[in-house]
Amino acid sequence: MIRVGIYGASGYMGGEALRVLLEHPQVEVAWATSRSGRPAEHFHRNLYGAGVQLVSPDAVGPVDAALLALPSGQAMTIARRLVDRGARVIDLGADFRLRSRPDWERVYRKEHADWALAEEAVYGIPELHRAEIKRARVIANPGCYASAVILGLAPLLRSGLVDPKRIVIDGLSGTTGAGAEPDTASHHPEIANNLVPYNVVDHRHTYEMEQELGLVAGGPVSVHFTSTYVPITRGILAICHCFATRDASRDKLLDLYRDAYAGEFFVRVYDMPKDEGASWQHRPYPWVAAVSGTNFCHVGLDVDERRGRIVVFSVLDSVGKGGAHAAVQNLNLMFGLDETTGLTRLGMHPY
Amino acid sequence: MIRVGIYGASGYMGGEALRVLLEHPQVEVAWATSRSGRPAEHFHRNLYGAGVQLVSPDAVGPVDAALLALPSGQAMTIARRLVDRGARVIDLGADFRLRSRPDWERVYRKEHADWALAEEAVYGIPELHRAEIKRARVIANPGCYASAVILGLAPLLRSGLVDPKRIVIDGLSGTTGAGAEPDTASHHPEIANNLVPYNVVDHRHTYEMEQELGLVAGGPVSVHFTSTYVPITRGILAICHCFATRDASRDKLLDLYRDAYAGEFFVRVYDMPKDEGASWQHRPYPWVAAVSGTNFCHVGLDVDERRGRIVVFSVLDSVGKGGAHAAVQNLNLMFGLDETTGLTRLGMHPY
Amino acid sequence: MIRVGIYGASGYMGGEALRVLLEHPQVEVAWATSRSGRPAEHFHRNLYGAGVQLVSPDAVGPVDAALLALPSGQAMTIARRLVDRGARVIDLGADFRLRSRPDWERVYRKEHADWALAEEAVYGIPELHRAEIKRARVIANPGCYASAVILGLAPLLRSGLVDPKRIVIDGLSGTTGAGAEPDTASHHPEIANNLVPYNVVDHRHTYEMEQELGLVAGGPVSVHFTSTYVPITRGILAICHCFATRDASRDKLLDLYRDAYAGEFFVRVYDMPKDEGASWQHRPYPWVAAVSGTNFCHVGLDVDERRGRIVVFSVLDSVGKGGAHAAVQNLNLMFGLDETTGLTRLGMHPY
Amino acid sequence: MIRVGIYGASGYMGGEALRVLLEHPQVEVAWATSRSGRPAEHFHRNLYGAGVQLVSPDAVGPVDAALLALPSGQAMTIARRLVDRGARVIDLGADFRLRSRPDWERVYRKEHADWALAEEAVYGIPELHRAEIKRARVIANPGCYASAVILGLAPLLRSGLVDPKRIVIDGLSGTTGAGAEPDTASHHPEIANNLVPYNVVDHRHTYEMEQELGLVAGGPVSVHFTSTYVPITRGILAICHCFATRDASRDKLLDLYRDAYAGEFFVRVYDMPKDEGASWQHRPYPWVAAVSGTNFCHVGLDVDERRGRIVVFSVLDSVGKGGAHAAVQNLNLMFGLDETTGLTRLGMHPY
Repeated sequence: MIRVGIYGASGYMGGEALRVLLEHPQVEVAWATSRSGRPAEHFHRNLYGAGVQLVSPDAVGPVDAALLALPSGQAMTIARRLVDRGARVIDLGADFRLRSRPDWERVYRKEHADWALAEEAVYGIPELHRAEIKRARVIANPGCYASAVILGLAPLLRSGLVDPKRIVIDGLSGTTGAGAEPDTASHHPEIANNLVPYNVVDHRHTYEMEQELGLVAGGPVSVHFTSTYVPITRGILAICHCFATRDASRDKLLDLYRDAYAGEFFVRVYDMPKDEGASWQHRPYPWVAAVSGTNFCHVGLDVDERRGRIVVFSVLDSVGKGGAHAAVQNLNLMFGLDETTGLTRLGMHPY
Repeated sequence: MIRVGIYGASGYMGGEALRVLLEHPQVEVAWATSRSGRPAEHFHRNLYGAGVQLVSPDAVGPVDAALLALPSGQAMTIARRLVDRGARVIDLGADFRLRSRPDWERVYRKEHADWALAEEAVYGIPELHRAEIKRARVIANPGCYASAVILGLAPLLRSGLVDPKRIVIDGLSGTTGAGAEPDTASHHPEIANNLVPYNVVDHRHTYEMEQELGLVAGGPVSVHFTSTYVPITRGILAICHCFATRDASRDKLLDLYRDAYAGEFFVRVYDMPKDEGASWQHRPYPWVAAVSGTNFCHVGLDVDERRGRIVVFSVLDSVGKGGAHAAVQNLNLMFGLDETTGLTRLGMHPY
Repeated sequence: MIRVGIYGASGYMGGEALRVLLEHPQVEVAWATSRSGRPAEHFHRNLYGAGVQLVSPDAVGPVDAALLALPSGQAMTIARRLVDRGARVIDLGADFRLRSRPDWERVYRKEHADWALAEEAVYGIPELHRAEIKRARVIANPGCYASAVILGLAPLLRSGLVDPKRIVIDGLSGTTGAGAEPDTASHHPEIANNLVPYNVVDHRHTYEMEQELGLVAGGPVSVHFTSTYVPITRGILAICHCFATRDASRDKLLDLYRDAYAGEFFVRVYDMPKDEGASWQHRPYPWVAAVSGTNFCHVGLDVDERRGRIVVFSVLDSVGKGGAHAAVQNLNLMFGLDETTGLTRLGMHPY
Repeated sequence: MIRVGIYGASGYMGGEALRVLLEHPQVEVAWATSRSGRPAEHFHRNLYGAGVQLVSPDAVGPVDAALLALPSGQAMTIARRLVDRGARVIDLGADFRLRSRPDWERVYRKEHADWALAEEAVYGIPELHRAEIKRARVIANPGCYASAVILGLAPLLRSGLVDPKRIVIDGLSGTTGAGAEPDTASHHPEIANNLVPYNVVDHRHTYEMEQELGLVAGGPVSVHFTSTYVPITRGILAICHCFATRDASRDKLLDLYRDAYAGEFFVRVYDMPKDEGASWQHRPYPWVAAVSGTNFCHVGLDVDERRGRIVVFSVLDSVGKGGAHAAVQNLNLMFGLDETTGLTRLGMHPY
């Protein structure tokens, strides 16, 4: 059994990590922290009766691995201590995600406390960096929007079929992405019948997208990204608009995507035929509800041949494949387990 | 492996049974039916990539057990054929739930086609009828509201502490309970900001509640039940009001419930202390979101000592403990498995 | 023009009062207060461009009338000052609602600062106290649940057809009722797919209901009331269960209600025929969505003749007929206007 | 009084027209049609008690004006009959919206029955075509998405500051836009926690946008538009991404918009300052909830100066400024009334 600790288990991301690891057949949750020291079920009623006591972060013992679900800026000091004691670290925050220190320090508005560790860290998308992840001491688990966008666009950017400087993306997020702390934007009377744009330009996740898609494209990429809260709880839909540099039909692009993700268990290409008369159940674009609570990412697409635009839809759960479940996928890889261990549960319908 | 067939897998109840059985370690899904003969993922996008083809009900082979998720009236003929071929049957509909034929025929407005089988059938609440379920050929899986109410009130009715003729219950149900067929009451523009009372008096499930609670109480029980659709997807909250015949404090009643469900894995007594200053997370009443997608039922209560009223809250998922998951619990019992096999997944937070 | 001031205009109740009075043809909003001193549109985007500046409560001038939308306990001192300066006062809080001082002080957990004024105050349900309201200096605007319940049950209690000691009510409320301050119970990820019981026994509004229904019934009444938040924004549904002391058909009771509210513009008896085959649009119970944003209360009912129960449904908007709109109805009466002035707008469909 | 008839009053668009006209001080609703011939309140419970009987479309008398809220293809024959009898016509459908017959016939997949009338018709956005609207016999009321986009982008396209061939727009729509007929995509269990892309490329409204923005820009415009249903009831958010051809700051662009809409009552530029520390209430982007049920359109924007992108947000109610309210604004203009008559109601908060 791998002994795993979780920092920040009273929040939504840490709570989801706790849920998944409690059901993981090869993991023992050594501890999970919260400054309040309450039972986990006080924060997460889904864990009622599971008997998990959260402990102070000052009172934790040695582990084989630790997941850090902390506000940005806290992981960069804790990670070093863990690594020094031989633990492997998966940071669910942003402290180790960027390769450019000037970008990181400008975007996160602070000095980085341990850039050597940031340089060593591997960006935790297995579908792109599987080999490095297996060997890594520190994983930078991607941002939720970044996961959706990178998985959605990597095959297209790799193909060279689209203009890499004119990628326009609307990211729609459920309110879980706003965190467990009550605030006006996620106050039910305000958001239940509303749509709330935020971080409209220069969103922090843009830098992850440009970094990783740039690697894939083999050159600079400009992502024009805007985020909006929508009144669902979990889940993200990234609507990615690209301009084709050559003609490409929907069928041809679906082939490209099927090839790209042929061996991937968790990324599914939504390739139902486009049939004008199809009932709603059978329309060929992915639905975010289908992947809530899972580590799946569904990707679908369409082409406007009249105007030369390709639209890619990528859906995932912000604390699933966009967070805690992806972290467990990385954990599996780091410890030589089958990558799907503990992560094969299906989504729900209805959700 | 137990070979199980599912009738009616394109609906919400049958689809949930399919999801659970696909993940069940001791079950092989032999077939699942739909008149349309499409892949399951056409109806249930959570099953995208699972590779399940639904088949015509006319083209099914022998199985060890069958789950019937069919409109009321269809199971009573199919069940006999299955039993004759040696299969054990769990009917998720209403055909075998009542012990009184006149009641059944009046309430369901048709003649019963196989009352001998109805008399043989066991009402499928393991917490009340575990021994009979193990031996049964036919299980009448309870109605969703009935499950919530019976589990919520059995300890209290058994105790004799309340007036059995003045039990008033409001059942609030998510729209999954209305089924997969689009209709005005579950049309999003109509229900999203609305509350829709229906089956306001003489709801069919009332007869199950009175039957089972009558057995527990050892005498006639009158349940005054009203149902209302609320804009959540899954889940039921039964608010059960009883009038105390003797003084009983909240603490004493919680003891009674803890004793009653001491050995039960799936029924959890929500017994957090009542603390006026507690934050919302810590309020001592169960939340339906916590049990969505699971086989858990959370029960909590309070007492109005000034006016002599006891309020019991019972929450479950209408297609979980109130349906398909409970059916699998019964299946486990019928085949000698640990009753929790394939059913231990935790709920989600947020849901 | 009547010059009206509003205390507490940054909250939901005060904001709704402001909206209604800005459109009232006979009222001039002299001022509306908020400690922050910001433009009203900062709190209420529906008022964007309306040019209303909120002012400090310390900087307000004389008015003909004031509406107080303040936390409980603050109105009882402010009201005296206003009355002394000749203003008429409508308190949207709870400070003047109860006739029994011991009850008030126990329930609200403080000493009352001006009981003389509380004794003088008139309980502001025009349908019961129209004549007194016209003459009153101080109106105690009813609690939202109390409005729904009293309007829903007054005809029945007056008739003597039901047991006055066994009235069981579930009140379902949208999250607007929880106020503008973000909190866990109204945090979207927590409530969007959830049902949250609160104030389960001995809810403060119970005392208003018992007081007013007791007057109507001509004797003591026991109301057994439980409240639950549901994921709608505005609106309340009170499901009121009564036990019949004599046989009474649905038709007879509808006659009773139509008679009781024959002259009332704002209370509508929902008396569509009960037709088993009716589509959902035509089911004979009121829908809360229909009255959102209005001063209407829709009342409907059904009878379980087998078990001797009468169910009354009463729906209104908690800041409409259950709050700010009702306050304006009272204001109209106090100043000799047609009671419907500024309040005739229809609800929306869909809402 | 202007005598107005409404075709198609059982649907959501026609029902909203009916609500607005019933409250219009200068209009008498002569008749409103539905093939079913039921009272309006059977379809629209907000009209309960209003006493409006819907009548067969075969039994309607002469009127001064008619609003047509009919499935596409029906208005083009009815409109001619009305015009011949001297009535002025506002078509809320698509039959008269395009200036190019080949486009219309290809996009709507039928032959046009009266192109002469289509050529005569005026596209009904008063902010662009006020003078022609006043004189028009036939108004083509714009599509809901088209209204949002055209109002949102007209000032920018007129300015020449952006690339007219690279306009990317995500249109998010509430489910009211899907109409009153129950269907899977708007079945509550499917959509409540979901996001449903549809008409992903070559959406019919694209042609209106390109036509009208082309007029404003003085040359061809390419709109790259995708639509998605989101789980709100009413309202549209258009997120419009443009690439700047010259540097332009947010402040400069807000000036441009304020100038463009200086005299317009119904289009409000949301120009709150951009303050990183601002609480959510004070963030400078429009919220769709604020304009639900009204004829207002709120427009806001931001600029990504690093990447040369301008984002414009435009919000309106699809049956308000995007439909029936805009139709009444046109009606007012056609009959020489103040354009705001009957349309000044404020939105609600919370909605």
